[in-house]
Amino acid sequence: MEQVLTSTQIRQTIAEVFQQNMPFHQLIGLKINHYTADSVELSIQMKPELVGNPIHGILHGGVTATILDVAGGMMVFAQVIENMEHITEQTVTQRLQNLGTIDLRIDYLRPGRGQEFIATATVIRAGNKVAVARMELHNEQGEHIAFGTGTYLVG
Amino acid sequence: MEQVLTSTQIRQTIAEVFQQNMPFHQLIGLKINHYTADSVELSIQMKPELVGNPIHGILHGGVTATILDVAGGMMVFAQVIENMEHITEQTVTQRLQNLGTIDLRIDYLRPGRGQEFIATATVIRAGNKVAVARMELHNEQGEHIAFGTGTYLVG
Amino acid sequence: MEQVLTSTQIRQTIAEVFQQNMPFHQLIGLKINHYTADSVELSIQMKPELVGNPIHGILHGGVTATILDVAGGMMVFAQVIENMEHITEQTVTQRLQNLGTIDLRIDYLRPGRGQEFIATATVIRAGNKVAVARMELHNEQGEHIAFGTGTYLVG
Amino acid sequence: MEQVLTSTQIRQTIAEVFQQNMPFHQLIGLKINHYTADSVELSIQMKPELVGNPIHGILHGGVTATILDVAGGMMVFAQVIENMEHITEQTVTQRLQNLGTIDLRIDYLRPGRGQEFIATATVIRAGNKVAVARMELHNEQGEHIAFGTGTYLVG
Repeated sequence: MEQVLTSTQIRQTIAEVFQQNMPFHQLIGLKINHYTADSVELSIQMKPELVGNPIHGILHGGVTATILDVAGGMMVFAQVIENMEHITEQTVTQRLQNLGTIDLRIDYLRPGRGQEFIATATVIRAGNKVAVARMELHNEQGEHIAFGTGTYLVG
Repeated sequence: MEQVLTSTQIRQTIAEVFQQNMPFHQLIGLKINHYTADSVELSIQMKPELVGNPIHGILHGGVTATILDVAGGMMVFAQVIENMEHITEQTVTQRLQNLGTIDLRIDYLRPGRGQEFIATATVIRAGNKVAVARMELHNEQGEHIAFGTGTYLVG
Repeated sequence: MEQVLTSTQIRQTIAEVFQQNMPFHQLIGLKINHYTADSVELSIQMKPELVGNPIHGILHGGVTATILDVAGGMMVFAQVIENMEHITEQTVTQRLQNLGTIDLRIDYLRPGRGQEFIATATVIRAGNKVAVARMELHNEQGEHIAFGTGTYLVG
Repeated sequence: MEQVLTSTQIRQTIAEVFQQNMPFHQLIGLKINHYTADSVELSIQMKPELVGNPIHGILHGGVTATILDVAGGMMVFAQVIENMEHITEQTVTQRLQNLGTIDLRIDYLRPGRGQEFIATATVIRAGNKVAVARMELHNEQGEHIAFGTGTYLVG
């Protein structure tokens, strides 16, 4: 018999999977700090391998794009979960397999200097087929490093 | 006395730096296959750490964004070099330090399945302050994985 | 009894509606030159009211955005029609009402000088829920004025 | 002898020019409600000619793109003015002639229903060569119709 789960339980499971079972997330050290129905916070510690330019010692723009893309995808999926009537591991897994980024825009505001980088996201268009999120990346001093906008297939 | 270099020499040096001295490029295994005045080809071998989703075994979208961003940046910089009147290691280094991505759009066309991914780029707007490139990512079978558009500060 | 139509017939009807029954298209003088299953060509004659900057006499960037958005939307809809099994005025009208632009990127390459501007589009991602097109705007001399990328809801 | 102007005076002149001397702005009825060093508000009254789809009676997406593009351009130019040391009609005109949209992204959030549409903008990246703004369009009831992001050449 399949077990009905709360949205809190399923988000916790997803956060664990995204942090521990996604090889590229492990490679860059992506952490899920929290994940609720209407907010998500991801972070990454600066480490030598993530540097783009060794002279400036700044975060590679590809890491910025990665963490913002993931933040947006998790945020729109939180809304998918909230709108599901029957949450089981199976139904969530099905929906998660359909989740995909259609397009992504990153606006790089300033060089990625810092010890830690924190990504957050907000849903700006919710839908049962397509959703759009806006994302932000700040360093540990609150400096705003980048904005992102992502359009995701969710249905 | 500073040595005047040809644009071919300087591109070769840049290609070596981008492949060997950029920590994040080494982490993901980015290779510069060729780099001329009007074309660039980068590639990456699929390896377990680059996978986003372990069930599907596909390339993480952040790796796609990374390689396309770098391809676009190198291509617009090739045009910067062509337009420089006096190419020395010093003048090129100065210009290279000013190179930065302002914004980047990635259009994900299909899942990143494959053994190798090849990125190419074309300049669509050349300028001495800002340049814009379009990029493409294909796998080793010629399947088109993603498009990119990048706006770069070059001056 | 509802009449089954060919895709050619339905595209012709849509082209007429887009050219004659869309108030804003009439205001700016948008013409549909041709509309097939895999290509679309729209054009606009330069006229004083479409000028953005009276000193330079160039096409307003908003007109560029408009014509490229419409070109992309029509092109993705042509593919929707091709994939419909049962084409009637009613089924097409239903699908057309669901057609909407989710996001649009315009890359302005050079000032919009010219007597006539021609927009074309290509589908880069076909889908039954979301489709993505790339668009181009040239003037009557073949000068490339702008690129566009549009993500459309089609389902 | 050239007259030195305050930034308030020059913004007022620019607002008048944008509202009264730009043919396409007159065609669609664009109004500049206010224009300060750190905010701008533009509006447009709904009228039949601006309708995209006559069945739904909603604002054409091209009008949305137009008003957001102009709002972003005016906002980044306000910052250009603030950073100018010597403001005369001539120096401002020179800078204004260099102002141009490099790329623009519009995210359409919901259908453009309403009697009036209000556009606002914020600079997210200030620079003496390139600046980036984020824009929003709301209707008279405060419903959020669209977001925009624009990258502008300002130098």
